[in-house]
Amino acid sequence: MREIIVVSDLGEFGLIARIVARLATAGASPAVVLGPGDDAAVVRAADGRVAVTTDVLVDGVHFRRDWSTGYDVGRRAAAANLADIAAMGAHPTALVVGLATPGDLPVDWVDGLADGFRDEATHAGATVVGGDVVSSPTLVVSVTALGDLHGHRPVTRSGARPGDAVVVAGRLGFAAAGLALLHAGRPDAELADAHRRPAVPYAAALRLAVLGATSMIDVSDGLVADLGHLAQASGVGIELARDDLPLPAELVDAALDVGADPLSWVANGGDDHAFAATLPSDLALRAVAELADLGEPVPFAQVGRVVTGSGVVFVDGPAPAADGWDHFRP
Amino acid sequence: MREIIVVSDLGEFGLIARIVARLATAGASPAVVLGPGDDAAVVRAADGRVAVTTDVLVDGVHFRRDWSTGYDVGRRAAAANLADIAAMGAHPTALVVGLATPGDLPVDWVDGLADGFRDEATHAGATVVGGDVVSSPTLVVSVTALGDLHGHRPVTRSGARPGDAVVVAGRLGFAAAGLALLHAGRPDAELADAHRRPAVPYAAALRLAVLGATSMIDVSDGLVADLGHLAQASGVGIELARDDLPLPAELVDAALDVGADPLSWVANGGDDHAFAATLPSDLALRAVAELADLGEPVPFAQVGRVVTGSGVVFVDGPAPAADGWDHFRP
Repeated sequence: MREIIVVSDLGEFGLIARIVARLATAGASPAVVLGPGDDAAVVRAADGRVAVTTDVLVDGVHFRRDWSTGYDVGRRAAAANLADIAAMGAHPTALVVGLATPGDLPVDWVDGLADGFRDEATHAGATVVGGDVVSSPTLVVSVTALGDLHGHRPVTRSGARPGDAVVVAGRLGFAAAGLALLHAGRPDAELADAHRRPAVPYAAALRLAVLGATSMIDVSDGLVADLGHLAQASGVGIELARDDLPLPAELVDAALDVGADPLSWVANGGDDHAFAATLPSDLALRAVAELADLGEPVPFAQVGRVVTGSGVVFVDGPAPAADGWDHFRP
Repeated sequence: MREIIVVSDLGEFGLIARIVARLATAGASPAVVLGPGDDAAVVRAADGRVAVTTDVLVDGVHFRRDWSTGYDVGRRAAAANLADIAAMGAHPTALVVGLATPGDLPVDWVDGLADGFRDEATHAGATVVGGDVVSSPTLVVSVTALGDLHGHRPVTRSGARPGDAVVVAGRLGFAAAGLALLHAGRPDAELADAHRRPAVPYAAALRLAVLGATSMIDVSDGLVADLGHLAQASGVGIELARDDLPLPAELVDAALDVGADPLSWVANGGDDHAFAATLPSDLALRAVAELADLGEPVPFAQVGRVVTGSGVVFVDGPAPAADGWDHFRP
């Protein structure tokens, strides 16, 4: 019988030392002026401006420990924040992480969490530079990400103009399909991993920004919902076509498996962290070429266009059914 | 009978709109390029480097709602992070805040929290630029603060040199005395407010940095513990004198009240967010003059000196008794 080491066995400072050691295996980044261990870290912000965003993830609300490992949660929590940075057209530079945990959490889980944060940060070009560890009856992970704009104007949600094309870089509906498979008792399905660890095309977002995206948003609530935020901020309407939404075969298969509408996943599923952007329509084709040039292939589609008016409508049939998600209206 | 409005009555987006409106009453700061409402905020970092620190505060661990209002918790959570920024010699610029809360939390409490964050941030010259609101069985507040070094080198914990004077700007033992009074059932005692809302001398920390502090630390765990961190990081020893620790009359009175040793509060009490610094000894007197010049008076004392060796020792008697605090060893 193996004894499980838990957080309270190590104590606060022992746990911090262990986490910092695992993070350090990523090596030093030139963006880090001063790493963990002082009152604050210091990170380069060569642009003279810094993009900053924060998220909180709660055990049983944003993740389930029987469905996701610590590594998965680290990857996903980091990805959600790094994607927000990239959606501004900013290059991710640094993360700080807060961990509020019961004392009986296995240290293995924290090891995985640290590794997940380190690996996703490294993938996005960023480094974990600091954090806080405290005791709590509920396991909560808080994340703040920083990014550098490299001299570029921030790409906000408010710049979409009538006539622009609406494009999406990255996967849509995969995380929702994975979650549905987990709910259906299929934890070993390949798509379940899409819920556990999103595949975020950070480089694609940065290319779209440089190419001239007029607006951009990280798709975390679902394509229709997030385009709704973008349309509202820009004071425009958005027309989508069901026929233009990408519907990969694996989503269709999974939908047959669990009896769902795969187009609802694509239109309304959150947590894939694709990037939805608007572009002058003559640039949409160039975007295809730019993104093909990225090394690893990124799903890319033009899904609609910006019009005068308000709201998001489908022009070729009813909107795929949405559940919606409000943190205080379950 | 008055009906109490709770968080779930407003829903996630209603609550966010309400918080953002309260924060906006502080007016726009020139440091804010892009405020709340997009994927990320954008903050000026004119220095080309940004200081960043994060903390997590948990209901029942870091605060009690029967002892502290939402306003108190906001002030204290902001202060803890802004003090970490100032302890690097950096000017606080921005905060992002995460709120994980049960749906039945009164909205009044959240209003107070937002006001507390706004007021403490404003006092320190910073602005709340973004955040996240999620549901959670446990109330948790996460905070990240950013700061600008104004061209100055960061003042770390590792620069103390033998011969330096050890000085403290700010109050010591007040928060601990306040906590003891609260435990003794004296919520109306004036000192109880020192636990609820620390009085952080941000400007004093920045003066000490410019004056030439060789090292500095925010006193959050207690003077002896935090000087221990500083001594370890600097590879030096620190000699303190009981006779040099400031012992204000109100602490002596409170200690008589509750049967405690007031010097233990001064030496080991946390959460006052005073600044302990080391300075070449010829600068210690100049520091007194600099700090007297600050507009509002800041308690200031030379409490010891840096020596070769390791650890923190008292040269004129036994060390005041310490309780210590480890998040996972209660």
